[in-house]
Amino acid sequence: MDRDLSALFDPASIAVVGASADPAKWGNAIAVQALRGADRHRVQLVNRRGGEVLGRPCLRSVAELDRVDLAVLTVPEAGLEEAVDGVLTRGAKALVAITAGLAPDREAALVARVRAAGAVLVGPNCLGVVDNHTGTYAAYNSFRPGGVAVLSQSGNLAIELDRLLAARGLGISRFVSLGNQADVGLVDLIAACAADLHTEAVAVYVEDVRDGRGFVSAVTAAVDGGTPVVVLVGGASSAGARGAQSHTGSLTSDAAVVAAACRAAGAHQVRTPRALADVLAALRQRAVPRGPRVAVLTDGGGHGVIAADVLATHGLEVPALSPATQTSLAEHVWAQSSVANPVDLAGYGEVDPDSYARTFAALQDAADVDAVLVTGYFGGYSSGEDGLAGLGPAETAAAKQIAADAVGRKPVAVQSIFPQSEACRVLTEAGVPVFAAVEDAAATLAVLTSPRARGLAPLPPAAAPLGPTGYSAARAVFAAAGVPFVAAREVRTAAELEAAAADLPAPYVLKALGRLHKSDGGGVVVGLPDLPALLDAHARLDASAYSVEEMAGLASGVELIVGARWDPRFGPVVLVGTGGTATEVLGDVVVALGPVDEAQAQDLLRGLRTAALLDEHRGRAALDVPAAARVVSAVSRFAAAHPEVAELELNPVLVTPTGAVALDARIVTQQEGQQWTSH
Amino acid sequence: MDRDLSALFDPASIAVVGASADPAKWGNAIAVQALRGADRHRVQLVNRRGGEVLGRPCLRSVAELDRVDLAVLTVPEAGLEEAVDGVLTRGAKALVAITAGLAPDREAALVARVRAAGAVLVGPNCLGVVDNHTGTYAAYNSFRPGGVAVLSQSGNLAIELDRLLAARGLGISRFVSLGNQADVGLVDLIAACAADLHTEAVAVYVEDVRDGRGFVSAVTAAVDGGTPVVVLVGGASSAGARGAQSHTGSLTSDAAVVAAACRAAGAHQVRTPRALADVLAALRQRAVPRGPRVAVLTDGGGHGVIAADVLATHGLEVPALSPATQTSLAEHVWAQSSVANPVDLAGYGEVDPDSYARTFAALQDAADVDAVLVTGYFGGYSSGEDGLAGLGPAETAAAKQIAADAVGRKPVAVQSIFPQSEACRVLTEAGVPVFAAVEDAAATLAVLTSPRARGLAPLPPAAAPLGPTGYSAARAVFAAAGVPFVAAREVRTAAELEAAAADLPAPYVLKALGRLHKSDGGGVVVGLPDLPALLDAHARLDASAYSVEEMAGLASGVELIVGARWDPRFGPVVLVGTGGTATEVLGDVVVALGPVDEAQAQDLLRGLRTAALLDEHRGRAALDVPAAARVVSAVSRFAAAHPEVAELELNPVLVTPTGAVALDARIVTQQEGQQWTSH
Repeated sequence: MDRDLSALFDPASIAVVGASADPAKWGNAIAVQALRGADRHRVQLVNRRGGEVLGRPCLRSVAELDRVDLAVLTVPEAGLEEAVDGVLTRGAKALVAITAGLAPDREAALVARVRAAGAVLVGPNCLGVVDNHTGTYAAYNSFRPGGVAVLSQSGNLAIELDRLLAARGLGISRFVSLGNQADVGLVDLIAACAADLHTEAVAVYVEDVRDGRGFVSAVTAAVDGGTPVVVLVGGASSAGARGAQSHTGSLTSDAAVVAAACRAAGAHQVRTPRALADVLAALRQRAVPRGPRVAVLTDGGGHGVIAADVLATHGLEVPALSPATQTSLAEHVWAQSSVANPVDLAGYGEVDPDSYARTFAALQDAADVDAVLVTGYFGGYSSGEDGLAGLGPAETAAAKQIAADAVGRKPVAVQSIFPQSEACRVLTEAGVPVFAAVEDAAATLAVLTSPRARGLAPLPPAAAPLGPTGYSAARAVFAAAGVPFVAAREVRTAAELEAAAADLPAPYVLKALGRLHKSDGGGVVVGLPDLPALLDAHARLDASAYSVEEMAGLASGVELIVGARWDPRFGPVVLVGTGGTATEVLGDVVVALGPVDEAQAQDLLRGLRTAALLDEHRGRAALDVPAAARVVSAVSRFAAAHPEVAELELNPVLVTPTGAVALDARIVTQQEGQQWTSH
Repeated sequence: MDRDLSALFDPASIAVVGASADPAKWGNAIAVQALRGADRHRVQLVNRRGGEVLGRPCLRSVAELDRVDLAVLTVPEAGLEEAVDGVLTRGAKALVAITAGLAPDREAALVARVRAAGAVLVGPNCLGVVDNHTGTYAAYNSFRPGGVAVLSQSGNLAIELDRLLAARGLGISRFVSLGNQADVGLVDLIAACAADLHTEAVAVYVEDVRDGRGFVSAVTAAVDGGTPVVVLVGGASSAGARGAQSHTGSLTSDAAVVAAACRAAGAHQVRTPRALADVLAALRQRAVPRGPRVAVLTDGGGHGVIAADVLATHGLEVPALSPATQTSLAEHVWAQSSVANPVDLAGYGEVDPDSYARTFAALQDAADVDAVLVTGYFGGYSSGEDGLAGLGPAETAAAKQIAADAVGRKPVAVQSIFPQSEACRVLTEAGVPVFAAVEDAAATLAVLTSPRARGLAPLPPAAAPLGPTGYSAARAVFAAAGVPFVAAREVRTAAELEAAAADLPAPYVLKALGRLHKSDGGGVVVGLPDLPALLDAHARLDASAYSVEEMAGLASGVELIVGARWDPRFGPVVLVGTGGTATEVLGDVVVALGPVDEAQAQDLLRGLRTAALLDEHRGRAALDVPAAARVVSAVSRFAAAHPEVAELELNPVLVTPTGAVALDARIVTQQEGQQWTSH
């Protein structure tokens, strides 16, 4: 349920507790900021030693405050509880705790007191809250007003983003420094900002997503409601995670899990502040994603060539255009122009700048084009830099026409040698993103053209928890969940082995049970042609129990790993990869938040680097991908119902032209996992 | 041998043939440019209709010219030969042909006339030549003076680069528009610019490298002589190649081959104009590459986290620092700071800006750090934007100290939220590269820290050419070159088969000969346990000849493809990849210009995505990589001696713990290759 954050973003009155007359103190900067909104709501300042800020006297005690809606607390750590209690008694419904350094137990007690009073707390250990529309300036910094809500676990990142957005003609509607997220967290704030009429998009920098599935739900709701969310999650690398631990004490999630969550939620994920700003600027175009086929439009061949190369590195296509499209383009250009794609006016832009607009319109209309990248000299005529300034007015007119043909249609990006020109200013103001560098244009187009994911299914009710689950029990549990296995019998003695072998077709596999990875150290013997070989292997393997199994013909298929683990932030995560003994070495693995249905599982399988091995190639038959997808889906549903399982895997799952069958299984409960990692 | 280009870059006199009084004509712009150097050398203008440019009268005929050193020809295509003959008789030693549209045979005849006169020709179809030091302005555009020689097949790219360099405090020493490279080509110009005292670095944009091995030699010589070369080659993608064909009629080379050539030559390869400018700016630091271990230095944790993540995506490492390094850092910071890496001053920069300089110096001295990335707020104190401007002078002093500790030592990059600040200006002017975006800083560091390659061995003398070479002959040829093969016998009849089988150990493989890919369509039968099975397979395979072979145990090793082809531009290219039937599907392939020695071959093998499969893993023994490298080296030496071979491959080569052995072989001559592609 969404929490009521109205006192945070639109308070009737604000108190700054710890306001200071000393410009070197944070309490001064925050008081100065808060007073900028004094014409919108009452602002009261508190400092134990009194003093004045901008001519306003400070009260000496919280007890002297009149009724307060929002309280910003920038007091020494030892005095935080007293200040919290004080403002709660003065009626505060929202608290922003700048103060850092509280031990976790004190922090938890503080949150309990705030909640008991029916209030909310941002922080502690944060830089404050801003709402530029309501004049709520409860932070150390100010931000240029605009339509982007910035939710950040880094203050410097917000300073940088403010500048990057301003350079793109954008500004900030709300800023919230997330701090420790002890009470109000990212999920609450995404929901509150999506509901804000003055917020057009939400930008997130976070190291610790905390409530991962809540994050997916909140972003999904925001995006469905027309508010795009752009996310930069720090800590993807091991050094980044080490930095996050030192910076905010964050528990970061595996980068692949975060990426899967963003995909499922429909968030646009970026890796850097500049990309964050670029995507936010491009979203103003409100383009409709269609597919990966980009037309490149230029007046200089070299720029077309470079753009095509760069688009390819971003996974986009620059296909040769259809005869129909080429014919429609040829009407607007001269004989030297190329209309194949890249579309190169080849000097005709200098003869008739309107040809840019006409070819652009034709590309918007073309059925075989999903997106358009304009690159190179456009902007140069109105730049006044070269000898062609006489063409400036015609170029500006072309820019207006391009802008009119761009918004709300196919994704468009413009790269210009002259991004500050009049023509580019016209494009930018209309919401068409203009870039100085073609790689930024391509990266942004790649984000804008990516399809919306299939969403995230809710967690099923938890099943009865499993205890420690050995090999044969794990097989049984998975089989009950719908996973096919090769035939096998668990045995101990040679006599049991002989009886079991009579039940199974040769050749055999013999596994020694009770090891984590059976294939390490020779615990698995394959290709045993007959009973004597089986007995011999049994005599040589030292174990208390064994599994004798039918041997699958690996040559007829591909070995996959299908697994799942329980992420502390995101819950069940299902994993598919190249299987067998090479799994770790190859690292060809894709993940998704669970549970996944069979269609999602097929998408996952198709996302493997080696996915082409599943199709017919070089005389090898196509494999039964639907059967593999059924296994993946079954495993994901099982994992989603078993939060007590830390990790499970089927490796290998053999996918053949006629089915998918698991050859091995392993389940590790949270308890077992902790025992192992404690050794 | 280097050609004499002195009349091109430092002429005693210049003639502009086709100079025009009409500002809409190129002949006007070029004449205006050329006259800018009239105080340095005599400038004569020619126009059939006379007229004046900047008050200077035009001669009406080339015949009226006094002696000419450099002639720029911007005449209609029909009159080019007459103009060339005319200026050659006036003594021209260098010609720049702007004129486009000549058919190849006319172009060749023109070049022959120029060479016979002992002169050189740039173009045709080019935008001119500039030497800013000698005042030679024989081009359509002007460029800001500086130390970078720009050799470009795109005029607009040069316009863009001029602006990008200016923004980084750099300028251009020479500009040459490559045009059709009918006479003077890229290789000549690299050599001439490397020898130029006023050129500090060479920047290349090219779609068609033409003389690929000459390019490698010229770049190697330039780099060895202290002039770095930064290269952007267009046409890597199929659409880019299509664009290059339309733009300059260029034959582009495979992107992997171009990359291999740049590596061998020690050129820094980039993909975009911005990266070209960034690397050129960073080269001013004259850093010494050491390795991939980067220390991140910041005052705000979020920026450290993001930088670490971005560095990882560029293949760089951000390792935890050694106890000794951490101890040395801890002396200069406060308790809240983290010295693990990212090194996060955590607010201490505001207390003492000199702490940036001291920690930077400690990182320069640290044995476990190869490069340093400073990221985040630095620059903000002197920016005057926030409330900390009082710290500006201290920050500027720190910047000076950092600059003094940076030049000529470990690669350094600085990312700042405030790249226009005084502190950043100090760094830039001293040669320390400053970036607004951390991804640009990381990408540049990745270029600067990459090790110099091992160079390129010369081509061996050509061996006696091979004719069409069938399977058994190909095996014999490779075996003579030093490649081990499994035992095999070529047979036709059942009787010959029976005799051959008696020579070989079971199980057997039987191959039908005479197909391009034997495994397509069931031309190879493996795992034949005995003679009856062999005879049965022989009866079912329809072929005029067969090879019966010993069957190798694939399970004990890894299958590679080892091949080579003759690139029209770069000569012998050796290829190593994941082999077997999955080669095309997996696309895990690396290439190098041949020939390669065994050490280079080992480097290649280690560059495979699946290289870890060569090492011990999960109970599988390490494979005999030196034996595989011997095969690669032998194949590369063979290919380098056989320019008549279009393509050859050994697939698979089975690498086991005890050796490497080829299981199949194929050789396609240029003649055969053309026959096939003509079908």
